[in-house]
Amino acid sequence: MVGSCRKCENCSVDLENYFPHKIPTYNGYNSDGTLNFGGYSHIMVFDEHFVLCCPKNLLMDVAPLLYAGITTYSPLKYFGLDKPGMHIGVVDLGRLGHMVVMFAKEFGTKGTFISTSAKKNQEAIERLGADSFLIIRDPKQMKDVTNTLDGIMIIDTISVVHSILPLLILLKSHGKLVMVGAPENPVEYLPVFALFIGRKLEAGSCIGGTEET
Amino acid sequence: MVGSCRKCENCSVDLENYFPHKIPTYNGYNSDGTLNFGGYSHIMVFDEHFVLCCPKNLLMDVAPLLYAGITTYSPLKYFGLDKPGMHIGVVDLGRLGHMVVMFAKEFGTKGTFISTSAKKNQEAIERLGADSFLIIRDPKQMKDVTNTLDGIMIIDTISVVHSILPLLILLKSHGKLVMVGAPENPVEYLPVFALFIGRKLEAGSCIGGTEET
Repeated sequence: MVGSCRKCENCSVDLENYFPHKIPTYNGYNSDGTLNFGGYSHIMVFDEHFVLCCPKNLLMDVAPLLYAGITTYSPLKYFGLDKPGMHIGVVDLGRLGHMVVMFAKEFGTKGTFISTSAKKNQEAIERLGADSFLIIRDPKQMKDVTNTLDGIMIIDTISVVHSILPLLILLKSHGKLVMVGAPENPVEYLPVFALFIGRKLEAGSCIGGTEET
Repeated sequence: MVGSCRKCENCSVDLENYFPHKIPTYNGYNSDGTLNFGGYSHIMVFDEHFVLCCPKNLLMDVAPLLYAGITTYSPLKYFGLDKPGMHIGVVDLGRLGHMVVMFAKEFGTKGTFISTSAKKNQEAIERLGADSFLIIRDPKQMKDVTNTLDGIMIIDTISVVHSILPLLILLKSHGKLVMVGAPENPVEYLPVFALFIGRKLEAGSCIGGTEET
């Protein structure tokens, strides 16, 4: 973000990312009508409120925390999916999914990658340190973990455009399904009954903010 | 309810209503295979855990609290929609919607009836004590309350089978849309983007249980 109003209900509690007229770093219009080009820019103008000073030797470690990091850390904290002993699933095996598994380890929760195919199984377990790997299209595997997850974070929304019901069924009662991205096509339907019988919830989360408001 | 296992994860924390194999008072099968007929019965057999003793002179006041009361009180408490100054909408003007407005008054929150038609306006305000009345099909009224509600409880699911997007738009960021019933036909689609940009949530709630588990 390069700017926001700094005085509305969201901005005044450090939730500028939920201010509807925030000015994003990429594809955001500044107050003078110019467009921001994010990482494609040579220079950019920021409100100093949104600029952090970072030692050069830490740049490569800190940079991912400011996008993939906060986007996943924030909903894990906000929705209470950070309690030791919990079991968290994540639909994705990219940068953001990787962060979820790293945070899960720090929180003392179990982290499971959920994927449509088996091809990334080895990478998930050996390289990224996931506790387990689950294939959505394998009915036996899905049945075995029914009603056992406390939360699922959906990052790769493409995998779930057709239906989120199979994921909701994996959740325990009071489980939480959080989407940190929005699919291009809407999800087919809202399975209200699956929410209703287990007081489950579906939510979206956009970048940061960990506290209940 | 007439029975449950009394030892699973839900039953052991007084959330028997979320035990998947609970035995409901109406249309539930007992362990001996007989069917329960609820209010159509002459006699019924209950686990004593689910029986309350109530003085005869209070029966007419207490009875509604054990269904319409707890079904609405529970999600208002569980989802934190009980803070003075909040603004809560309710889609319905029946027994359950009436209870939401009564609880809202006790909590110090503002209660608004949301309806598809104006015909119950007078009843809502004068007889049931709602603070305001909102007609879903009136674009001007809907626009005026956009981004102002903290929570909406959907009881009359028939009104919202086609789309819940217009309701989600009424919520502030971090707002909560709770369904206490499941529609016969699934809700058309899940508007992920509307959840995502405001960290909003959609949830279901079935009867009771007020504490976070």
